[in-house]
Amino acid sequence: MSIPKQINPDLVKERESATFDVEEFSAWIYDDINLLQMKRLVEEELFKDSPDPIELDYLSYEDVYNRGVKHSADAFNKLRALQERLHPGGTEIYPLLMSGPIGMALMPAGSPLAVHILMFTRALRSHGTPEQYAKFGRRADNCEIIGTYAQTELGHGTYLRGLETRADYERKTDEFVLNSPTLTSYKWWPGGLGNTVNYCIVVAQLYIDNEPMGVQLFVLQVRDEETHEPLPGIDIGDIGKKIGMAGVNNGYLGLKNVRIPRTNMLMKNAKVLADGTFVKSPVSQLNYFPMVYVRCMVVLGNCVLHAEAATITTRYSAVRRQSPINPDAPEPQVLDHLTQQMKITPEIVTVIAYRLAGGKLYKMYEQTAKAVSRSDYTRLPELHALACAMKASCTYDSTFGIERLRLSCGGHGYLASSNLGNLFAWATAACTYEGENSVLYLQVGKILLKTWTDVLNRKQLMPTMAYLGVCASWNEFPQWSGDWKCLVEALQFTATNKTRIAYKSYNERLKRGLTEPEAVNATGIELTQAAELHGRAFIANTFYEEVTLQERIKKRSASLNKLLENLLELYLVHTVQRHMADILRFITLTEDHLTSLQNRLEAVLAQLRPNLVAICDGFDFHDKVLSSVLGCYDGNVYERIFEAAKKSPLNQKAVPKSFEQHLKPFMKSNL
Amino acid sequence: MSIPKQINPDLVKERESATFDVEEFSAWIYDDINLLQMKRLVEEELFKDSPDPIELDYLSYEDVYNRGVKHSADAFNKLRALQERLHPGGTEIYPLLMSGPIGMALMPAGSPLAVHILMFTRALRSHGTPEQYAKFGRRADNCEIIGTYAQTELGHGTYLRGLETRADYERKTDEFVLNSPTLTSYKWWPGGLGNTVNYCIVVAQLYIDNEPMGVQLFVLQVRDEETHEPLPGIDIGDIGKKIGMAGVNNGYLGLKNVRIPRTNMLMKNAKVLADGTFVKSPVSQLNYFPMVYVRCMVVLGNCVLHAEAATITTRYSAVRRQSPINPDAPEPQVLDHLTQQMKITPEIVTVIAYRLAGGKLYKMYEQTAKAVSRSDYTRLPELHALACAMKASCTYDSTFGIERLRLSCGGHGYLASSNLGNLFAWATAACTYEGENSVLYLQVGKILLKTWTDVLNRKQLMPTMAYLGVCASWNEFPQWSGDWKCLVEALQFTATNKTRIAYKSYNERLKRGLTEPEAVNATGIELTQAAELHGRAFIANTFYEEVTLQERIKKRSASLNKLLENLLELYLVHTVQRHMADILRFITLTEDHLTSLQNRLEAVLAQLRPNLVAICDGFDFHDKVLSSVLGCYDGNVYERIFEAAKKSPLNQKAVPKSFEQHLKPFMKSNL
Repeated sequence: MSIPKQINPDLVKERESATFDVEEFSAWIYDDINLLQMKRLVEEELFKDSPDPIELDYLSYEDVYNRGVKHSADAFNKLRALQERLHPGGTEIYPLLMSGPIGMALMPAGSPLAVHILMFTRALRSHGTPEQYAKFGRRADNCEIIGTYAQTELGHGTYLRGLETRADYERKTDEFVLNSPTLTSYKWWPGGLGNTVNYCIVVAQLYIDNEPMGVQLFVLQVRDEETHEPLPGIDIGDIGKKIGMAGVNNGYLGLKNVRIPRTNMLMKNAKVLADGTFVKSPVSQLNYFPMVYVRCMVVLGNCVLHAEAATITTRYSAVRRQSPINPDAPEPQVLDHLTQQMKITPEIVTVIAYRLAGGKLYKMYEQTAKAVSRSDYTRLPELHALACAMKASCTYDSTFGIERLRLSCGGHGYLASSNLGNLFAWATAACTYEGENSVLYLQVGKILLKTWTDVLNRKQLMPTMAYLGVCASWNEFPQWSGDWKCLVEALQFTATNKTRIAYKSYNERLKRGLTEPEAVNATGIELTQAAELHGRAFIANTFYEEVTLQERIKKRSASLNKLLENLLELYLVHTVQRHMADILRFITLTEDHLTSLQNRLEAVLAQLRPNLVAICDGFDFHDKVLSSVLGCYDGNVYERIFEAAKKSPLNQKAVPKSFEQHLKPFMKSNL
Repeated sequence: MSIPKQINPDLVKERESATFDVEEFSAWIYDDINLLQMKRLVEEELFKDSPDPIELDYLSYEDVYNRGVKHSADAFNKLRALQERLHPGGTEIYPLLMSGPIGMALMPAGSPLAVHILMFTRALRSHGTPEQYAKFGRRADNCEIIGTYAQTELGHGTYLRGLETRADYERKTDEFVLNSPTLTSYKWWPGGLGNTVNYCIVVAQLYIDNEPMGVQLFVLQVRDEETHEPLPGIDIGDIGKKIGMAGVNNGYLGLKNVRIPRTNMLMKNAKVLADGTFVKSPVSQLNYFPMVYVRCMVVLGNCVLHAEAATITTRYSAVRRQSPINPDAPEPQVLDHLTQQMKITPEIVTVIAYRLAGGKLYKMYEQTAKAVSRSDYTRLPELHALACAMKASCTYDSTFGIERLRLSCGGHGYLASSNLGNLFAWATAACTYEGENSVLYLQVGKILLKTWTDVLNRKQLMPTMAYLGVCASWNEFPQWSGDWKCLVEALQFTATNKTRIAYKSYNERLKRGLTEPEAVNATGIELTQAAELHGRAFIANTFYEEVTLQERIKKRSASLNKLLENLLELYLVHTVQRHMADILRFITLTEDHLTSLQNRLEAVLAQLRPNLVAICDGFDFHDKVLSSVLGCYDGNVYERIFEAAKKSPLNQKAVPKSFEQHLKPFMKSNL
């Protein structure tokens, strides 16, 4: 079976039917032509002689890990060479490797060095003193030592203050003594911890004279640098098979009277002095600020996974032909079935909406970081609320969106070689890590409760919360014009009223004698709903502004503007329909209004139909990134499915060994 | 690490708090105390010395298959011995092994013999003549030969008439010549086809004198009975790794001038005579009747998967403690967080609703089968519509429900040893096989269109469609009392109006000149929505009748009746809230009505809270069936997680081989 050199004619036709310039779209969605070009350069360099992902499907668990180590080291070396060629001395393209789609293409099962690059080195820089950075950080940046960030335990994830690992300060030796006092206090999950790292940052409860001083960070060597043997008192290993990410080498760690010098506690903020004096961190407001950055990255990362799945599904749906519409007519591309368009097009437009809102959130983070460096913390709560709401809804939408896309590929979506299962396994993990989604929504809900008090007291609101004050001042929703502004305002008005209702329920509970946290728990359903809508109103408004602001319009060609108008139209109509149960509670709509929305939905699906393949081309995924027999640029789907099947170990000999051993004796015994 | 002998005290407390008798609940949900006892007997027999599922996690792809063959043969032998002991000569308990939860416990990756038992032997009986049964069926029943059912092709799944495999009749030899004329005509997906079967039924286009005679079934030997070598002209193999079900051995098959005698076409219905005369099947209405049976089985099967996930999650949520509600209070069971109850309880109640509706559907199938044997086909369309709608919504709800349950277990739900990933992989496959869900909904939609014409013409409607006529006669929804009957009627009224609207859109399209199938395609979104609601109204009504009919109430204790009332209350309130966008389109509800529903939701969640663990106990899953470190009956979760981790191959030596090979050279190169 050889793969044809030609592009599948259906895909040729699709590309010819596009009404816009794909390269202009790519530069727009990457928001930076330089970033796009850099990405392509890195891909070219790294994919030159990269391994075939299909083979990974059949490696043993142990060999997936061993290959992960090898490929991570090789890729890091290549990338370092490239970095030196392009920007000597910099480090900015390393994260490109370990997190984004390029890293996943090289290591579809994840990398045991990812947490080292993304968290260990960053934490040493952000939490260590200059001396500590000189001692550990430089070696870590240089990969002379490999570390991880050991926070979660077998018994605790979300609730940081519940961690049980202890670090007791001992004055006479000027040391901390680290212990895992219970089974549930074992560190559990850190990437690379199992068999890869020789150092880690341990998050533990600091005790001085048996008095708890809160959670602190400690640098700990866990394995010998020469032999890699675990050091005394260290019980360390792999946590075993997971749904995905077999290469990440998540590990466990138990500690028994392990001693480290006092100077191994990261002391940029809080400090322990030699006499046992504890000096508190001066900037406790900042505790959750680094998480905002990570949550931006999670949003953008899950966007990429979702976009990959949309690209694979769209291309396959343009190639696959099935079920004639009129009997005896030829079978159409499945993309011509309306139900298929309804499955795919909203996912594409959701990707774009999150890409825009994630980009805006990241810019807000950068501005706020500057403000913070001037000790201006005013915008932290609103940024925190947005990052929580967006992280929760984006990871949820992408996870379930990828699965719906996979299902819309029919049986072949169930093949490992479609890569859709792997994308799902990555996306869904993000619903849990970096803040479990329901917990995040509850945090947003609490901020909304506080903000609603400000609304009632007519205080000034934070910019991204200002709509709550505006909408609260309306007795009822203004006349329904149905235009884009109206649809965005309908979402804002609904978010406002959901907040009002949750606030009312919460206050009734306080009056009935519940404590504030009890009332929050009891109002949890309504609060999470309000929080979700707050996030969705922000996403819708960001999309609306991007498409309608004159200064943005002027930078784009007319054909691209037309495309974006269609995408916005679909996004708003579809989002409003999706939240119609809440909207109709607060806004009266007639049968004509509702029929009109359905007609607009169907009309814009038809408008977008000829551009779907081209939009996905514009996401600019390298075939090695998609790594899918269904999603290749050339559309030679069936040949690739067959080629992948041929690699199954069960196809390497005519008769499997179990035939003589088990099957034949079984059949013969029945004669 | 040893597993404690005691039951976790939180689970002890939960079981003591139950307000009903678990054994009575089990007998009720199994609908037959004998069935329940038979199930327990089979479990006891088969699980005595069954393998540890954790070890399967680390086998190579090839060994998963080889073990699947061994365990299938062993289990079949044990079961045959049991069958002979209990009911000599019968076969009724074999399907228990190969499909249900017991089979999954023994072969978590699926069995390469499953399609043999479930489809090959059945098809020989239902489509073969007595002579053909004597020749092939008896040997198949006895496992002297192993077969599969080869229908889907690389290029065709849903659309049966599009199959490309050819069977040309050749008069002079009285043979069929079988061919796969294209790459896309390769058979693809049949279970066991890859390396296991030596026979199969091939579904192919019959040609006589180059004239197409439609799709027929042919018995074909594919491998030598002694050597298991593929026979001449047969290109056969494994289709490679999938998202789940690694043990099912799905295969491909290409044919090149393979000859079989004329008598190998299954001729119970259609026939080819020796002179080449084609005799049509007299009962073409029956083509889709066997599928009704299979779809009942899919509904009940996915119910089981969903119930397993609910049991695992509920037990874990009773054991897991996290995040104090009041600061400095002890951490509560996560099941005491309202948001967690909102994630779990609706899934439990959904399982029960589908169990009831699936059971009712199966009884309707049995009645209809009797009618069909009297050549009475009147109820086929309504049964077909219900089976399609239920199969689609049950597989969808269970798939996404299992994933939401898994997410509500936090990080540990991502461990393979939770078994939740495996349950998801099984459940989601059922969204695609036995009729892709959207295609099924469209078929229901088409039946609804026809039925609406009958409504307009005031014709008599089929019993499960009769509500459409009743609701159509109301000018508006009767006064909203909010009681259960009102909630069921609200769903029926909404299904009726969604049908009315879809019918209107469809007719407008016909008037604009579209053909009927084009109009169906263009109305696809509204038709699938109407179809889904039709199914949901049936499920809600079935649940309502079960709980409220006097003859049913009398058979149960007061405490069980009280429990079922709470379950119904939650199901109806939650389902109505979920479809509120559509309901509010047709029924005017006040703010008070909506607030009341939310209050009822929160109240009944609290009522059900003390019974959740006991309800799941009542599903009566053996620990070996759940096969989950999070879900064991004794609740010793953390010890089991650790025990499973210790089995990772990466924990069998202190230093992995990649350290000296790759990691150390990499780190040293950076010095």
